[in-house]
Amino acid sequence: MSSLMLINKMTVKSGKRDEVTAVLIESAAAFESREECIMSLVTHDADDPDVIWVQDVWTDEGAHQAAMSTPSMQEFVRQAIPLLEGMPEQHRVYPTGGKTPTGFPQA
Amino acid sequence: MSSLMLINKMTVKSGKRDEVTAVLIESAAAFESREECIMSLVTHDADDPDVIWVQDVWTDEGAHQAAMSTPSMQEFVRQAIPLLEGMPEQHRVYPTGGKTPTGFPQA
Repeated sequence: MSSLMLINKMTVKSGKRDEVTAVLIESAAAFESREECIMSLVTHDADDPDVIWVQDVWTDEGAHQAAMSTPSMQEFVRQAIPLLEGMPEQHRVYPTGGKTPTGFPQA
Repeated sequence: MSSLMLINKMTVKSGKRDEVTAVLIESAAAFESREECIMSLVTHDADDPDVIWVQDVWTDEGAHQAAMSTPSMQEFVRQAIPLLEGMPEQHRVYPTGGKTPTGFPQA
């Protein structure tokens, strides 16, 4: 059971950030009941009005894949993609240390 | 008292990632006693062997500035900078929603 940390950067079509944000937040609500999901944080870039960052932390990669493949999640993806400029940048990262809240996967 | 969230991306000189990571983790230890610091997570990019991401979450921006201006922190910065390819990318982000661990600043 390997943990999963993702840093996602999405560039939206001009003026579409709030609309995409609403879809992302609604989709993240589906993770509330999934205890393997420690974090799925939707944030706005302070300097670029067309950029959204989503930081994901899961204790189990398989659970993330399962959650992303549900029909409801695929519907959210279908809604968001046309509002983006190109595909999202997705960076998988591995924890090496530092200070983290309880429950975060360690190095 | 405004919260602060940062997504930092550092590109290191070839082969220097572990050395920079050690400096970052040692510097993050100084945040353990600072309760305003909810997270200072040092991670390695899974696909680029020269990239480190540091995700910071502070409940108080002033506390972050104070922590970064101490002589010991400046010494860590002095050690790390020569090992980087250019300056770090720093993205300030504002939380808008999603699932987060307890204690995280909300939207």
